[in-house]
Amino acid sequence: MPVRYETPDASALYPVPGVRLGIAKAGIRKADRRDLLLIELAEGSAVAAVFTQNRFCAAPVTVAREHLAAGHIRGLVVNTGCANAGTGEPGMVNARRMANAAGAALGVPGSAVLPFSTGVILEPLPIDRVEAGLPAAAADLREDNWHAAAHAIMTTDTVAKAASRQIDIDGVRVTVTGISKGAGMIKPNMATMLGYVCTDANVDPAVLQGMLARAADASFNSITIDGDTSTNDSLVLAATGRATLPRITDADSPAGIPLYSAIEQVCIELAQAIVRDGEGATKFISIVIKGGRDRDECRKVGYAIGHSPLVKTAFFASDPNLGRILAAIGYAGIGDLDVNRIRVHLDDVLVAEHGGRAASYREEDGARVMQQDEITIAIDLARGEAAATVWTCDFSYDYVRINADYRS
Amino acid sequence: MPVRYETPDASALYPVPGVRLGIAKAGIRKADRRDLLLIELAEGSAVAAVFTQNRFCAAPVTVAREHLAAGHIRGLVVNTGCANAGTGEPGMVNARRMANAAGAALGVPGSAVLPFSTGVILEPLPIDRVEAGLPAAAADLREDNWHAAAHAIMTTDTVAKAASRQIDIDGVRVTVTGISKGAGMIKPNMATMLGYVCTDANVDPAVLQGMLARAADASFNSITIDGDTSTNDSLVLAATGRATLPRITDADSPAGIPLYSAIEQVCIELAQAIVRDGEGATKFISIVIKGGRDRDECRKVGYAIGHSPLVKTAFFASDPNLGRILAAIGYAGIGDLDVNRIRVHLDDVLVAEHGGRAASYREEDGARVMQQDEITIAIDLARGEAAATVWTCDFSYDYVRINADYRS
Repeated sequence: MPVRYETPDASALYPVPGVRLGIAKAGIRKADRRDLLLIELAEGSAVAAVFTQNRFCAAPVTVAREHLAAGHIRGLVVNTGCANAGTGEPGMVNARRMANAAGAALGVPGSAVLPFSTGVILEPLPIDRVEAGLPAAAADLREDNWHAAAHAIMTTDTVAKAASRQIDIDGVRVTVTGISKGAGMIKPNMATMLGYVCTDANVDPAVLQGMLARAADASFNSITIDGDTSTNDSLVLAATGRATLPRITDADSPAGIPLYSAIEQVCIELAQAIVRDGEGATKFISIVIKGGRDRDECRKVGYAIGHSPLVKTAFFASDPNLGRILAAIGYAGIGDLDVNRIRVHLDDVLVAEHGGRAASYREEDGARVMQQDEITIAIDLARGEAAATVWTCDFSYDYVRINADYRS
Repeated sequence: MPVRYETPDASALYPVPGVRLGIAKAGIRKADRRDLLLIELAEGSAVAAVFTQNRFCAAPVTVAREHLAAGHIRGLVVNTGCANAGTGEPGMVNARRMANAAGAALGVPGSAVLPFSTGVILEPLPIDRVEAGLPAAAADLREDNWHAAAHAIMTTDTVAKAASRQIDIDGVRVTVTGISKGAGMIKPNMATMLGYVCTDANVDPAVLQGMLARAADASFNSITIDGDTSTNDSLVLAATGRATLPRITDADSPAGIPLYSAIEQVCIELAQAIVRDGEGATKFISIVIKGGRDRDECRKVGYAIGHSPLVKTAFFASDPNLGRILAAIGYAGIGDLDVNRIRVHLDDVLVAEHGGRAASYREEDGARVMQQDEITIAIDLARGEAAATVWTCDFSYDYVRINADYRS
């Protein structure tokens, strides 16, 4: 059960002119399961992407990077059930075959398709099943297929994740719709998550890449479930240009600003949905750090807290064991941190100041906040003007159960 | 149940001439529990120590650092039940009172005593109980009290941890005996662990500090349970000089080499005991990295694997989900790592090479090794001559249970 998240209704996911999506059950790992997604992008679409920083990046990530660099992307293809990672040279061959087969299904060259895989690592991709499934996915291509597409990319997710916005720019309606997947192996720099966001705005490719990098930083790169960075993370932003608007060549222009805002909102909603559906999560925790010298040190503190199994189990237990938060701040790696200046709030409750428990703190106030299923830890480092937010979840028996059972 | 570890019998813990230990039940957190340890060191003892790197270091750590710098240490005092960390200025006052009371019990100045605390963070130390308990601890001072002392410093430990060696140097018997505690919040740079190692050798203080730093690096700084670095970690090495040997002024001398070796053996045994008794541990895992450019990058890889909840839950499940190990190597932070050159063994089974699963690998071989309660992951980075070892344990339901329940 995700923490306060439900998949939007199909009717709340606005189609994006120039984008069609098709789903198939290819039997890649399990029978009778939607496990293959084909996305067709209209001629002339601009496509931006960010990928995992993992050195063991999966074969499809390598191929997608190559194809993206060559330009003129017309399609995306995604399979679940197998990550095609740690598969060596045969994995590369399979990733190219997957792109080629998707290209054939769409009537475009294989080099115009970005391939993506998610699932178990270190096992060969059953490429024959992928190829056999693609004609059905192509036959299913529709503009109003986002809801089914969100379901087709799930692995250990318990709910499908999607978000959509419509804005008006100069009287023209512009749509931003996206889907994501991921529930474990989530950490900065794109852990096992996939995200596909499309808009019908007309955006210069370099500007689009800049918008994506910024939105990823504010969303998918600000979440953690277990600190593991996956081999396959990818986030794609495509702009079809079908909206009857002039091309956006400046992110800070009157048209660029509201478009970026809608993209960021969709990305944050998709990223938070991943945390809300975190493996075994019972609580959604926002860690808000301010007063840092720079954003990097704020994030270090946020991630030290967000990765601490001791903090996360205390939240699971609704135990205001706040010393664990202070300890995590202390080992976050800021060498000259003056702990006597730090103030820590748990929602509206001042927990710590002057290097220790706040004089006004009462255990029952902490206990009250800890009972909630959404909690904000606010930390003022009191040494600068920078800020950052990290979203995470608690750590429960179910996390262990899910990850001990995943392959069985 | 620790993984293949039992507390040595009292008779296997050799007394160290010049060291007496006394235990008391001070009722600091729970009634009728040994929770206070007093250690008396003979006049003229050399004392070395290393402390937590956590910026939120506990009050007793600050006081111990001050007293150590002033020199002439004659005693150590340790309480469990309360860490006296995150306690601000009142915590400092209490840490000084604790040292003073121990000094009074030993007949030495308070500044000659190093205070240590372990237990819950952010709660005030019940200093009155500590003070009230010290006369009983002083009355209990005996050279053959190491076994009871090991029990008196336990918190969430399920077994007491102690190790002892005797060596011959120039026909003179020299003893090294130590105790440690810790079962969670364990990570490089001295997580919630305390260790006290004593020898009757006569060692120059600077040489002793160098031996301790080196032994700590090879032992306590090479283990991880959950990646949390505590506020209170401390490791003390004392040399009483009661053995009838010339003073050791060079660690690489014919007398220094066997002494260091015995100290390192004791420290490794004590550190491994902490991992074997890791909260919820069912398996003891040695991560052996070789072929790195330097020790630091070998450790990065070791800790990336040792901290990964996904790797640790897979070990708990005896699931040879080796892709999780490859993924952790990939995100360890070595930017120019060539994953195609890496070879990974699980005990004697070659698991991965050429960027993927080894051609010779059979799932049943991996499964056989994973059933064991002691497993070695050996990784050859094939880019240099450096090596490092990290010891860790798996991650089970019981870790969550223990840490969700710790304060209740």
